[in-house]
Amino acid sequence: MEKQNRSGTAGKVIRCKAAVCRNPGEPLVIEEIMVDPPKAWEIRIKILCTSLCHSDVTFWKISIGPFALFPRIFGHEAVGVVESVGEHVEEFQEGDMVVPVFRPNCRECRDCKSQKGNGCSIFGDKLVAEMPRDGTSRFKGMNGETLHHFLSVSSFSEYTVVDVVHVVKISSEFPAEKACLLSCGVSSGIGAAWKVADIEEGSTVAIFGLGAVGLAVAEGARLRGASKIIGVDLNQEKFEIGKKFGVSEFINPATCGEKKVSEVIKEITDGGVDYSFECIGLASLMEEAFNSSRANWGKTVILGVEMHNTPLAINTYFLLRGRTVTGCFFGGLKAKSDIPILAQKYLHKEINLDGFITHEVNFQDINKAFDLLLEGKSLRCIIWMD
Amino acid sequence: MEKQNRSGTAGKVIRCKAAVCRNPGEPLVIEEIMVDPPKAWEIRIKILCTSLCHSDVTFWKISIGPFALFPRIFGHEAVGVVESVGEHVEEFQEGDMVVPVFRPNCRECRDCKSQKGNGCSIFGDKLVAEMPRDGTSRFKGMNGETLHHFLSVSSFSEYTVVDVVHVVKISSEFPAEKACLLSCGVSSGIGAAWKVADIEEGSTVAIFGLGAVGLAVAEGARLRGASKIIGVDLNQEKFEIGKKFGVSEFINPATCGEKKVSEVIKEITDGGVDYSFECIGLASLMEEAFNSSRANWGKTVILGVEMHNTPLAINTYFLLRGRTVTGCFFGGLKAKSDIPILAQKYLHKEINLDGFITHEVNFQDINKAFDLLLEGKSLRCIIWMD
Ligand SMILES: NC(=O)c1ccc[n+]([C@@H]2O[C@H](COP(=O)([O-])OP(=O)(O)OC[C@H]3O[C@@H](n4cnc5c(N)ncnc54)[C@H](O)[C@@H]3O)[C@@H](O)[C@H]2O)c1
Ligand SMILES: NC(=O)c1ccc[n+]([C@@H]2O[C@H](COP(=O)([O-])OP(=O)(O)OC[C@H]3O[C@@H](n4cnc5c(N)ncnc54)[C@H](O)[C@@H]3O)[C@@H](O)[C@H]2O)c1
Ligand SMILES: [Zn+2]
Ligand SMILES: [Zn+2]
Ligand SMILES: [Zn+2]
Ligand SMILES: [Zn+2]
Repeated sequence: MEKQNRSGTAGKVIRCKAAVCRNPGEPLVIEEIMVDPPKAWEIRIKILCTSLCHSDVTFWKISIGPFALFPRIFGHEAVGVVESVGEHVEEFQEGDMVVPVFRPNCRECRDCKSQKGNGCSIFGDKLVAEMPRDGTSRFKGMNGETLHHFLSVSSFSEYTVVDVVHVVKISSEFPAEKACLLSCGVSSGIGAAWKVADIEEGSTVAIFGLGAVGLAVAEGARLRGASKIIGVDLNQEKFEIGKKFGVSEFINPATCGEKKVSEVIKEITDGGVDYSFECIGLASLMEEAFNSSRANWGKTVILGVEMHNTPLAINTYFLLRGRTVTGCFFGGLKAKSDIPILAQKYLHKEINLDGFITHEVNFQDINKAFDLLLEGKSLRCIIWMD
Repeated sequence: MEKQNRSGTAGKVIRCKAAVCRNPGEPLVIEEIMVDPPKAWEIRIKILCTSLCHSDVTFWKISIGPFALFPRIFGHEAVGVVESVGEHVEEFQEGDMVVPVFRPNCRECRDCKSQKGNGCSIFGDKLVAEMPRDGTSRFKGMNGETLHHFLSVSSFSEYTVVDVVHVVKISSEFPAEKACLLSCGVSSGIGAAWKVADIEEGSTVAIFGLGAVGLAVAEGARLRGASKIIGVDLNQEKFEIGKKFGVSEFINPATCGEKKVSEVIKEITDGGVDYSFECIGLASLMEEAFNSSRANWGKTVILGVEMHNTPLAINTYFLLRGRTVTGCFFGGLKAKSDIPILAQKYLHKEINLDGFITHEVNFQDINKAFDLLLEGKSLRCIIWMD
């Protein structure tokens, strides 16, 4: 039995606008598309707003290999309202405000039930493109061609279909554009600082890359009482903005001369930082981040998605001397239980979300969000659907 | 004021026999040498017995670079009796039974006082050759030439001089050859399982390399109640002996055909082990160990000392999916406090040490110990000084 919704669209294909990427690296094109109704355990969401994360840019650029799927609808940082739900969906109903998350969280498998990590052993821990249960797409172009999903979210569309394991309910009182930030980048940074690194008071911290992700790490480190937060970025403008998030020292690799950034960091921290984070996506900087960590207990957390799939090269003697390297998707957070906690903290003014929003554009200007991010001008640019 | 000892040797140069390595990779030569009296904060030790660890072999083979120091006295796994002590030494006195340890432990610096790791910020966490305070040698050949130390221990000599931060007192009731095992390999393996990995009951474990170090990891894992302990070794004979240390499954990479060992391990553990250890010293196997660990919480601990200083190459997506890699010298144990704990556990029959001793030879046959280890016949060969 089909549940009918107020607008009468439930169970029917919806025609709407989406920003389609036809070829790698090319500007998105606003097109009319067709969005299928949700199948079992899926919901169809009317996106309120979405924002551009660097992971969209990384995959948008990939032109060869299994990750290069075109035409495609990118976008995975968003917030929306449930338009209709598929069979067996109990957790959500029409009108709910929801945040989609690329990292699945079924809450029933061994991994979801464990206290450790945030993978899901049923829905996999790989980056999946299409719908997770049947591997197919819910999007078609007007000529009937299949449009691929991205990270099982695809929020650069007025409507999208997402599996229930990829969605978290949030109070509809919550400001939409702040909820959008919790959908990926900011949660990833705060989670990495709190859950993965578990930074203690008085720790020294280095952060490579002061985009929204790196600055969210800084925010997490600041709130944990880190004594020194060193930001590393090629973009000098990030230094001023970084201060607002607790960054206390800045290193621009371009002005280090002969010295490696890791050498500079070791000098100013008496041997290296307690915690080091890579939030750029380049193996060479992951190595520098690792080399910046102190012996004996230094921990490096990789958040950056390597742009060229280059492996990270590690000096094994540095490992033997007691260093650790780890990584995380979505900050090691379990979406269903941790997003509500972060939302609550925002409402109690315990975390800063407002500072991450530097720009806002309308959906038809979505390519402007790409320009702003690529030019290093924005942290997060909110893309409003209407 | 000089403290005199019973044998009247205190303060004087001692002539004794040592197994000197004149050139990399060549058999050791038993020669008469001169051992200086201990300087301040040093003690001179009469070695009772010593054993060969693969780390001796690794550095014995190195013929170029800063680590290639010859002529040299190798050996770092040993037990002995204090012959005399230098100025300011309060912790030890003549006649004490002591275990030297290559990893310094001053107990006063920030690192030694911390609960984490086992480096020492005063005495450094690098592998030092000569005496740690003044960087000089206490050994001379009969023609006056300097003989280099190894890892600040150099136990392949009837007498050696060691800094107090590199020595731990042990009850003289304790069987010497068992104390010798605690000096490096076995402690390193058990410590890695208990302190670094902190294996929980029911965990799955993979161990690459079933020498004394790898089997000590198995012993540690077994005692923690691991549900599956997979041993990986090219030497089929290690499989039978491994069972005594709790190894429950065996993989010989030579018989895996097209498959990688990590693929086989993932198959038999439903996605990978909880804990993976590399106890061989090859970057390619460290990578396999890492790839054998499960997503979400899999932890790889590197113990092997890379033979060619090749970096470890890590797939960064595997890290993002929640894997961790770390490493340790001396199993992350703080020598001064943890060796007495292990000794106690042996006396209470809570750990197996006896099984690691597969051979015993006299000092003049020390090269036989090299042959046995290189041929894969021994775990530990005790080399008795008289
Ligand atoms: N692990 C996760 O779950 C997760 C989540 C979100 C984003 N990410 C990844 O995190 C990274 C950062 O994302 P973002 O949205 O903050 O990106 P961003 O583009 O806003 O920020 C990246 C920053 O790195 C700086 N940078 C670039 N190259 C540099 C170099 N060579 N040296 C120093 N600084 C350099 C840029 O100036 C910029 O400030 C990306 O790799 C993204 O894919 C990962
Ligand atoms: N981190 C530390 O504190 C510490 C302490 C002691 C020893 N070590 C290191 O641990 C390692 C092991 O030491 P050990 O004394 O047990 O050595 P060992 O020679 O007794 O054991 C090594 C084992 O690895 C196996 N092996 C060798 N090459 C292999 C390959 N390609 N594939 C599979 N198996 C292979 C051998 O058959 C042998 O059983 C060495 O690298 C040593 O330097 C480190
Ligand atoms: Zn799950
Ligand atoms: Zn993202
Ligand atoms: Zn050793
Ligand atoms: Zn110390």
